[in-house]
Amino acid sequence: MTFDSLSPDDLVSHERQLSNEFEQLKATGLQLDLTRGKPSPEQLSLSDGLDATFDGQYVVDGGTDVRNYGGLFGIREARRLGGELLGVHEDLVIAGGNASLTLMYQYLSNALFYGPLGPGTAWRDEGNPLRFICVVPGYDRHFTITESLGFEMVNVRMQDTGPDMDAIERHVREDPMIKGIWCVPKYQNPTGYTFSEDVVNRFAELGKIAGPHFRIMWDNAYVVHTLFGQGDPLANLMDACQKAGTADSVVILGSTSKITRAGSGIAFLACSSTNLSHFKQGLSVQTIGPDKVNQLRHVRFLRDGQGIEAHMQRHAEIVRPKFEAVLEHLVAGLEGIATWTRPNGGYFISVELPRGTAATVVQLSGEAGVKLTPAGSTFPYGKDPDDSNIRLAPTYPTLEEIHQAMPVFLTATKLAFARQRLEHS
Amino acid sequence: MTFDSLSPDDLVSHERQLSNEFEQLKATGLQLDLTRGKPSPEQLSLSDGLDATFDGQYVVDGGTDVRNYGGLFGIREARRLGGELLGVHEDLVIAGGNASLTLMYQYLSNALFYGPLGPGTAWRDEGNPLRFICVVPGYDRHFTITESLGFEMVNVRMQDTGPDMDAIERHVREDPMIKGIWCVPKYQNPTGYTFSEDVVNRFAELGKIAGPHFRIMWDNAYVVHTLFGQGDPLANLMDACQKAGTADSVVILGSTSKITRAGSGIAFLACSSTNLSHFKQGLSVQTIGPDKVNQLRHVRFLRDGQGIEAHMQRHAEIVRPKFEAVLEHLVAGLEGIATWTRPNGGYFISVELPRGTAATVVQLSGEAGVKLTPAGSTFPYGKDPDDSNIRLAPTYPTLEEIHQAMPVFLTATKLAFARQRLEHS
Repeated sequence: MTFDSLSPDDLVSHERQLSNEFEQLKATGLQLDLTRGKPSPEQLSLSDGLDATFDGQYVVDGGTDVRNYGGLFGIREARRLGGELLGVHEDLVIAGGNASLTLMYQYLSNALFYGPLGPGTAWRDEGNPLRFICVVPGYDRHFTITESLGFEMVNVRMQDTGPDMDAIERHVREDPMIKGIWCVPKYQNPTGYTFSEDVVNRFAELGKIAGPHFRIMWDNAYVVHTLFGQGDPLANLMDACQKAGTADSVVILGSTSKITRAGSGIAFLACSSTNLSHFKQGLSVQTIGPDKVNQLRHVRFLRDGQGIEAHMQRHAEIVRPKFEAVLEHLVAGLEGIATWTRPNGGYFISVELPRGTAATVVQLSGEAGVKLTPAGSTFPYGKDPDDSNIRLAPTYPTLEEIHQAMPVFLTATKLAFARQRLEHS
Repeated sequence: MTFDSLSPDDLVSHERQLSNEFEQLKATGLQLDLTRGKPSPEQLSLSDGLDATFDGQYVVDGGTDVRNYGGLFGIREARRLGGELLGVHEDLVIAGGNASLTLMYQYLSNALFYGPLGPGTAWRDEGNPLRFICVVPGYDRHFTITESLGFEMVNVRMQDTGPDMDAIERHVREDPMIKGIWCVPKYQNPTGYTFSEDVVNRFAELGKIAGPHFRIMWDNAYVVHTLFGQGDPLANLMDACQKAGTADSVVILGSTSKITRAGSGIAFLACSSTNLSHFKQGLSVQTIGPDKVNQLRHVRFLRDGQGIEAHMQRHAEIVRPKFEAVLEHLVAGLEGIATWTRPNGGYFISVELPRGTAATVVQLSGEAGVKLTPAGSTFPYGKDPDDSNIRLAPTYPTLEEIHQAMPVFLTATKLAFARQRLEHS
């Protein structure tokens, strides 16, 4: 149903009908929140076993008492776990605090003010304005970090096999002020797409074009978050970079935030030993080290890569039906009007609405008690040039709430579209 | 024994005797570390009750699930605990992550780059070089933060009732580039002295001299760490500032690092609501919020101010004999040669050795297997102008280890002094 076949009169009566439907939905007084990628309480309960007694066993790895000071990069056991999670040797992994966002900020501010490779390499000494490539649609908190640090942001479009690599290579070749790029390579936020092997290999070559101070911020937040089937394969960027001789160009990030607890997990940063030694200097000024007790708690609970995989299957059993429900509603309600992604994992479904309607749909949905992520928030500066992208986050609401919320979203979309057509008819 | 009465020949033979004694101490092959203020395992075990099961009780304060995202300033219950600890209303308290050091760094870097009072107030726009007053001897990690952020550091001497306020007021009056001061007001690191009421009141007036962008970094790390008797009273700076109309001039810090666990506790930052709202902006870019599960763990374990007090008495019972032992050794061995502080609480004893001998004493002690905090580390840039201050940290070693380590320190001191006298005779 694209309204193309409707006469002007029919369009008017169709809009009136949708308005009526929408008023009825409003009257039901919903209060639902589909804004952020939060795990549901049921998912969180999967990890309540973290809070087991330690039975006095606080000493690890040859004498480190996790209750005391020391260990800027975290305990060896947690670094190993992070290495298994991210596919990187444990010596290259920092097991940090509770937020990979903090590690990202610390890494970038250190590179900006003190240099990715130490004295004489500080980005801020290279002139103004510095730029950062942002894959769009993407993750708003990434964009906020680079905006706050004073970078201009350059949009490059996400496609179903990864970002537009031609555009990235062209930008990097032509503009020496570009210092890095934000990526979520697997089950990308918000599309849910995974970068292809070809894309990963081109990322491994990027450092050769960009020079030694360029950094790929490879936020592998959803690396083990498969929902359907065998999931998507993702080539190992660190391996590819090591082969290409560009290991310094990549900074890999991840966390257990959506494995165990959101805000009480372990964050990881992995990079070459050269990068690590320069980052260490900045890090040591800002912290006495991470919460090692919580790291040990996690190691004992998750054990290893296999333990994580088994745990993630339990998550998938809870989350999968919710994704299926959202997708069923989209198919039933918006075929021909909008398009959407069908990810094999992750936390989001990305919907492309008719151009110029996203902000209206978010507003209308909000009026009917369904809070959506603000339109534009998947773009730098909150500005979606097409005003068309919407990020749906199915994990937190219950199945029943999804079945209540989706009709609101669908009707709001059809209503916004009908009104837009009316205005232009 | 100051060696003043010794003839040159006697001095030579005395040095020889001390050298022999010292060689014998070396031969015992000690390996002791008195460098940092770390709690002992026995102290840490006092808080093993933190790792209790939650019995599924993760929801606090009207619906917040501590296992999920949200809450940049921490849970209400933890902010209340921090307010009781620091003597500040809970609304003015951020309950943060595991390190007050990180909050200090974040506060200062936010003021430097974005401004203590928001747009138009960034310190870095006020010219170069910016300066920060450091009370000396003081805490090396404070100095490292301001050095790393590019501040020049100005030394002001600590006295037994607090820092030299005449000097501070003069500096602040004469030098508009001074943006703040580091203080540890109670059981100061390393002297163990507490600021008097008069000093606190003069700090409350300081903002009037210094202007609206000046900040007192009031690191109340040892506020409840009394070891002897009733402990030292400390006047409430926030109350005094509120009376004086200078509430924006103070940023109060503290943590449970030396109450529960070093590196796995809760850090607190308290300041005026104006400061809080500006700091919030910067903080929200860098983190998704603190570990709320660990905050709830702490609230359930410590309960409130009274709970903390009872807990700290158990610490005191463990630590007090160690301080007494160190002091006994000092009295028996260095009377007339050195002076030292006799704090009623905290983590350190500060020793003033004969001028020009501290580095030698640290080196000699190290050769005999007793690691001391590097000479100079209690001063900015690691430079003690008199080369005389040594910080002793009695908490971590056992009583037996203190009785082994102190003779090494005493003999090293006497030997260094004798050699110095010989050189100058």
